[in-house]
Amino acid sequence: MRGVVLHAPGDVRVEDRPDPVINEPTDAVIRVSAACVCGSDLWPYRGIEKLDGPTPMGHEYVGVVEEVGSQVTTVKPGQFVVGSFWASDNTCEICRSGYQSACVHRVLMGTIGTQAQLTRIPLADGTLVATPGMPDQDLIPSLLAASDVLGTGWFGAVAAQAGPGRTVAVVGDGAVGLCAVLAAKQLGAERIIAMSRHASRQRLALEFGATDIVTERGDEGVAAIKELTGGLGAHSVVEAVGTQESMTQAVRSTRPGGHMGFVGVSHDVALPGDELFFSLVHLHGGPAPVRQYLPELIDLICDREIDPGKVFDLTLPLDQAAEGYRAMDERRAVKALLQP
Amino acid sequence: MRGVVLHAPGDVRVEDRPDPVINEPTDAVIRVSAACVCGSDLWPYRGIEKLDGPTPMGHEYVGVVEEVGSQVTTVKPGQFVVGSFWASDNTCEICRSGYQSACVHRVLMGTIGTQAQLTRIPLADGTLVATPGMPDQDLIPSLLAASDVLGTGWFGAVAAQAGPGRTVAVVGDGAVGLCAVLAAKQLGAERIIAMSRHASRQRLALEFGATDIVTERGDEGVAAIKELTGGLGAHSVVEAVGTQESMTQAVRSTRPGGHMGFVGVSHDVALPGDELFFSLVHLHGGPAPVRQYLPELIDLICDREIDPGKVFDLTLPLDQAAEGYRAMDERRAVKALLQP
Repeated sequence: MRGVVLHAPGDVRVEDRPDPVINEPTDAVIRVSAACVCGSDLWPYRGIEKLDGPTPMGHEYVGVVEEVGSQVTTVKPGQFVVGSFWASDNTCEICRSGYQSACVHRVLMGTIGTQAQLTRIPLADGTLVATPGMPDQDLIPSLLAASDVLGTGWFGAVAAQAGPGRTVAVVGDGAVGLCAVLAAKQLGAERIIAMSRHASRQRLALEFGATDIVTERGDEGVAAIKELTGGLGAHSVVEAVGTQESMTQAVRSTRPGGHMGFVGVSHDVALPGDELFFSLVHLHGGPAPVRQYLPELIDLICDREIDPGKVFDLTLPLDQAAEGYRAMDERRAVKALLQP
Repeated sequence: MRGVVLHAPGDVRVEDRPDPVINEPTDAVIRVSAACVCGSDLWPYRGIEKLDGPTPMGHEYVGVVEEVGSQVTTVKPGQFVVGSFWASDNTCEICRSGYQSACVHRVLMGTIGTQAQLTRIPLADGTLVATPGMPDQDLIPSLLAASDVLGTGWFGAVAAQAGPGRTVAVVGDGAVGLCAVLAAKQLGAERIIAMSRHASRQRLALEFGATDIVTERGDEGVAAIKELTGGLGAHSVVEAVGTQESMTQAVRSTRPGGHMGFVGVSHDVALPGDELFFSLVHLHGGPAPVRQYLPELIDLICDREIDPGKVFDLTLPLDQAAEGYRAMDERRAVKALLQP
């Protein structure tokens, strides 16, 4: 089969790789219908995260089950499935509390690689959720979004306690930030402020439910949020970048007693204890337990209530994956969908 | 009147100071029945926090109202009152959301000084809560504890979501940590692990409701908590110290999806973003909104349901305040009560 391998920073190749097989009786193998490039794939692509030799890439996926191990009971060959970037058993105490991304048996899909024609899914019963029947082709981008960026933005909005009567600010206008806007809208937030300086992303944010756009960043961005919230700060802030600047901006944009959900993968960030202490902000975030939200998100997508697939503004055949990475790196594309 | 003034690190003096007067129509002046030395008073006493000249000390107090300003309506001369270390209007949007310690008009009592015979209370209507009648003398230490350490430990336990079915670990065996144990018990926690290596503090923790004692610190302390919780960590962890070591210990002792309440005043702490991110812990803390809890705490004390006054293991006349500071600094006393 063909699959994406990152050989060195900037060196994305699509290569022949061995077809995956069932290793464990709890595995499934799926034929990937669509995969994509994640903002977090850009960290090793840019050389900021160290590579340990040639690495199969990708952790987002939807597809059709080809084969299942002997212990798999909840999905079967021929079903269309969506899974999260963490494989999880969905039965351990941590999973049952809603934190499948910290499952005691979790496996990171990024170590297997889903930017490929076929991929192996560990813990298939716990990880995969089948759609009701075979979805229409035009729903595939949205279902793919549920696999990571929508689930992650959703978690950010939940962690920030977006909901009725609350003003939500979203720091970051990548696919996750845009999906957090969509999630905040679905969760009933009264006012949603998207922080973005890119016209096309602003448009999508407004389409997803943003009521206000703030173009300032850093201290000026904080001042703009305060200005819009009677000097107090937002009730809920979603951070979807992962840098020192964006985390600081998010903490300072949240009112005392408010909630900040941070879902940008943290890189070289140190939060000063005294600032956190005196902020009186609730802080929660991390790798999103997307599996928790998948059944609900699949329903919303199949009922055509939400259309998060709009975050894909570039669609390429798998063999042109390198161009997908380049376009996202250069911010020419929000998110690239790859068709195997 | 007599009042405590810190002249330099280690130099505590009790001096004649001018009697406080009503400055604003919202002020009250109270005759202090009891004040005390706070763990946070030790930071400037030890020279870790910079002093800006001779400073009146103290922010915990109970007493009898002497005089009120023309706009004060909820308390009157002769009433016994308890207040928090932040004066707050209790009417602004932040106060109404339960965060009186971030009131938009707040005044820090530490800038006025309550280790004195008399003290001025700004925003008296919002700040002071009268007890039902004149309390028995033996209740005064507990009511004084409500003014800060009990309210702060309570907030830590609430922020950590201590409650039925949950295992709570408390990092720090000072008065606040011990009160967090008491709070966790009152909030219905199933199991309460006090982290302490001092026999007398361990005894009080057990008396307040601790079910387990862990004497290890740092990574060994974390390992001990994991050992007691099936390898997962506690559901709820209260941090009541404020150092890098204690914050790290608290984050690592909390299970993914669990809640950490931090109430130790943060000094030279930097939390690595990636550790927070991958911990999936909920983090909340800061200067406790004690005012929120005062009516409930006063009722529990006056009904003799709780006896947090036991944290005072040294009682001195105000004129011997210096010995109270010394005893706490040398950890000969958990907390010193001063009688003006």
